[in-house]
Amino acid sequence: MADFKLDVPVSFGHCDPAGIVFYPNYYRWFDRCFHSFLRERAGGHRLICEKLSAKGTGLIDSGAKFPAPATEGDVIRLEMTLADWGSRTLRVEYTGYVGDRRVVSGFELRGLFLMDEAGRMRAGALAPLRELLRL
Amino acid sequence: MADFKLDVPVSFGHCDPAGIVFYPNYYRWFDRCFHSFLRERAGGHRLICEKLSAKGTGLIDSGAKFPAPATEGDVIRLEMTLADWGSRTLRVEYTGYVGDRRVVSGFELRGLFLMDEAGRMRAGALAPLRELLRL
Amino acid sequence: MADFKLDVPVSFGHCDPAGIVFYPNYYRWFDRCFHSFLRERAGGHRLICEKLSAKGTGLIDSGAKFPAPATEGDVIRLEMTLADWGSRTLRVEYTGYVGDRRVVSGFELRGLFLMDEAGRMRAGALAPLRELLRL
Amino acid sequence: MADFKLDVPVSFGHCDPAGIVFYPNYYRWFDRCFHSFLRERAGGHRLICEKLSAKGTGLIDSGAKFPAPATEGDVIRLEMTLADWGSRTLRVEYTGYVGDRRVVSGFELRGLFLMDEAGRMRAGALAPLRELLRL
Repeated sequence: MADFKLDVPVSFGHCDPAGIVFYPNYYRWFDRCFHSFLRERAGGHRLICEKLSAKGTGLIDSGAKFPAPATEGDVIRLEMTLADWGSRTLRVEYTGYVGDRRVVSGFELRGLFLMDEAGRMRAGALAPLRELLRL
Repeated sequence: MADFKLDVPVSFGHCDPAGIVFYPNYYRWFDRCFHSFLRERAGGHRLICEKLSAKGTGLIDSGAKFPAPATEGDVIRLEMTLADWGSRTLRVEYTGYVGDRRVVSGFELRGLFLMDEAGRMRAGALAPLRELLRL
Repeated sequence: MADFKLDVPVSFGHCDPAGIVFYPNYYRWFDRCFHSFLRERAGGHRLICEKLSAKGTGLIDSGAKFPAPATEGDVIRLEMTLADWGSRTLRVEYTGYVGDRRVVSGFELRGLFLMDEAGRMRAGALAPLRELLRL
Repeated sequence: MADFKLDVPVSFGHCDPAGIVFYPNYYRWFDRCFHSFLRERAGGHRLICEKLSAKGTGLIDSGAKFPAPATEGDVIRLEMTLADWGSRTLRVEYTGYVGDRRVVSGFELRGLFLMDEAGRMRAGALAPLRELLRL
């Protein structure tokens, strides 16, 4: 069962000269879905970063398959699942449907990035984030 | 009174390193608002282009002022008005609010572009579009 | 004479289902042109903001006309002019050509935004920026 | 050895509130890199589609890892390799560097999409594309 759902209406400007969604937009929608979830659960990314003294919940890995095209006027039902909490990585999975047709399946591997004393980013422990999200 | 309204939730990815909406996004939202209106009124841009043998409802001129910033988590209420129908141009006006604060005021001047015999685009008469939109 | 020039190769992903540049991209290119100029002249936006204790060189107003379309494979020669320095606003003008054909004419009205004591953004004096840019 | 290289200057507008590249942009740059290659080798995507009666060289799968962040002012040297030609799929691999630092490693799995008699898209044989590209 999905942990969060987001409807994405596909507009003219999301599509390319072939008339279908320009694929990097799917990743923008994955990111938007995750941030919408953070907002609903814990007041949003900015507040979470303040509470955890973090720079952001950034990306380590990502991927998406496109079994069928989507086009302007379609409404993509995007379903998000927090699939795997590691100690320093969170795997988030996404599936998007237009009606019964699956148009995208993907994932993000996210970390919680902190600045260390030397001013370099490093991935911090995820337990505090998980607690904030009550998961 | 607005001819159409669209709520735009501002996400992390819409914002720039200053933490506010990267301004070209407002124009993407203007365009999305106009296309959402076309969908509601007349089945969408593609169907309209088929019916009118047009290439698209393209842009001739555009502009936007930004009286206040918007940031992640804000929901922009975007209001659209079909402000002036000329014989070959349509002026569409947009105002966006976050709560009581106006964050954007802008316009698009649109034409209906047709391919002529020589394969060049030209602006066609707008009366057929206006009729399709029942305005 | 232009103060700065930037070549923008138009790619597939910049174009919409009508096969031409999706117009908000022009504004992204205006912004990129201005920031490229800041980099060449004064080490870039971030360094300038640090030196001037500013939040950013944000937008107050903007506009663009599109006399002819551009499409994938075109290279747009974008020419930028710092057209008018006011005490708190800078007007930047842009013209883009594909070969001899003008495809865009636009402007940005920019301010230098500072945080005041109450944590609200306000437009600061531009003289220090102008000095940094040696103009 | 790379089959194609593209320099990508990272601008302010490519970055998010954390001050680093908003990750979907990497996919836009992968796509731009592939299309720039098509242009150099065979006159561009549109011409290729005309010659092969194809709708486009669309995406089947994609992925990207981000071992280090990139930020405004960085120039990413993006290297592309046509890693594997299948009968109906082409795997394209990308690696991006800022100086000696690797900031992205990714891939696209592309097909050549044709319209069948029923108006549905299907993946066609890649041999004609490979021949056009002289590979």
